Order: sequence, then C-alpha cells, then structure tokens
Amino acid sequence: MDTSRKQYKVNVRVWITEADGHFLGLGRVRLLENIRKTGSITGAAKEMKMSYRQAWQMVEDMNKRSATPMVEKILGGKGGGGAKITAAGEHAIGEYYRIETLINQFADELNKEVKL
Amino acid sequence: MDTSRKQYKVNVRVWITEADGHFLGLGRVRLLENIRKTGSITGAAKEMKMSYRQAWQMVEDMNKRSATPMVEKILGGKGGGGAKITAAGEHAIGEYYRIETLINQFADELNKEVKL
Repeated sequence: MDTSRKQYKVNVRVWITEADGHFLGLGRVRLLENIRKTGSITGAAKEMKMSYRQAWQMVEDMNKRSATPMVEKILGGKGGGGAKITAAGEHAIGEYYRIETLINQFADELNKEVKL
Repeated sequence: MDTSRKQYKVNVRVWITEADGHFLGLGRVRLLENIRKTGSITGAAKEMKMSYRQAWQMVEDMNKRSATPMVEKILGGKGGGGAKITAAGEHAIGEYYRIETLINQFADELNKEVKL
C-alpha cells in the first residue's frame, strides 16, 4: 500500500449513556458550563441559541439520570429564576473531560500506526 | 458522590479524516461492504436507501482521499455498471474496524472506573 504524503487522523466523539438514554456529551457539558457562567438556564440557553424549554429539558433529563442532581434551580424571578451547578455537576463535567482526553490520547497514539 | 444503581456507559464514534475532510466512518465502510455484496454502486445505494448520485460522490471522495483508489468502477451497463473493492479498499475497511475495536475496548476499560 502506498501511504504517500496523505495525512490521516483518527477522530473520536465521546458521550455517556445511562441505562437506555443519553446522559452526557459535549453539548450538555457546554450547557452546564454556560449555566455556571451566566447563573441561569435562561442565560445559558441564550448563549447557545437554544430555547429555554430545550435547555430546561436537557437539565431535567441530566438531573433524572444522575444519582445526585447536577443543576440546582433557584426558584422565582423572571425567566425561570437562577440556577447553579452542584458538586455532582462539577464532578460530572470533570469526568467527561477526563474520559474524552484519555480517549483522544489513545486515538492519537493509534494515528502513529494507521496505514491507509 | 452516590454512585447508586445507575449504569453509565462510555460511547465512542470513530471516523478518519484526510487533510481537511472526512475520509472514512461507519457510513462509508457500510457503503464499501454493500458494494462488495451487490457488485455495484447502484446496488449498494439501494441497500442503503440513498441516491446513486450520493453513493457515487462518496466513492469519488474516498478514492480521491486514498493513496490508491478503494473502489474500481467497471464501465458500461445499465445503471452505471459494476464496481468492486480494491485491495486498498479491503485494507481500509479492516483498518477502520481494527481502530474502532481498539478504541471501544479502551472505552470499555474506562467504564469500569467511571464515577458519576
């Protein structure tokens, strides 16, 4: 096989499922980070150009699938009130990035020996 | 963190890029396998419910991005004639599955220590 000057790269997308459904991928991690940054689900939804309803449903689903809620809603106020990331949420963000980094490092190692 | 009875799983999707663009993912591997099975791009497209044009473009792009063409078109005949996988194509299918398997095995190992 002529491997010539072509540059190939192994790419990986990582997500975590819980039982039968999606739990945590890059989209939800970004949502959590935007809740942390803006202090509300409304603010995070705006940053990500998604509807409040969509963001809220993602948060509800994550909270349901996590052993401990990941986002704590602060009741009241216009636009659904504030929200903050719990210790379980911060832990999950860290775990996602740790796993993603390890898998990407593994894929980078494979790049060295891929022959196409 | 209460890890309770929740079952979490790390999932991975793998694809290979060449220079600036998509080269080989599960969709294209399935297309190659269907060309092998049916002996033509037309037949493979039908199996996958895609248009001949779409399948043909995927084959053209793969052939362009591979050092050696992966699909050899046999000219003539109704519906664009036949096609077969070259040795380079068979090799690429094998490499894709080999890499995908290794990364999935690595992800499975991580599953054992994921705490969410």
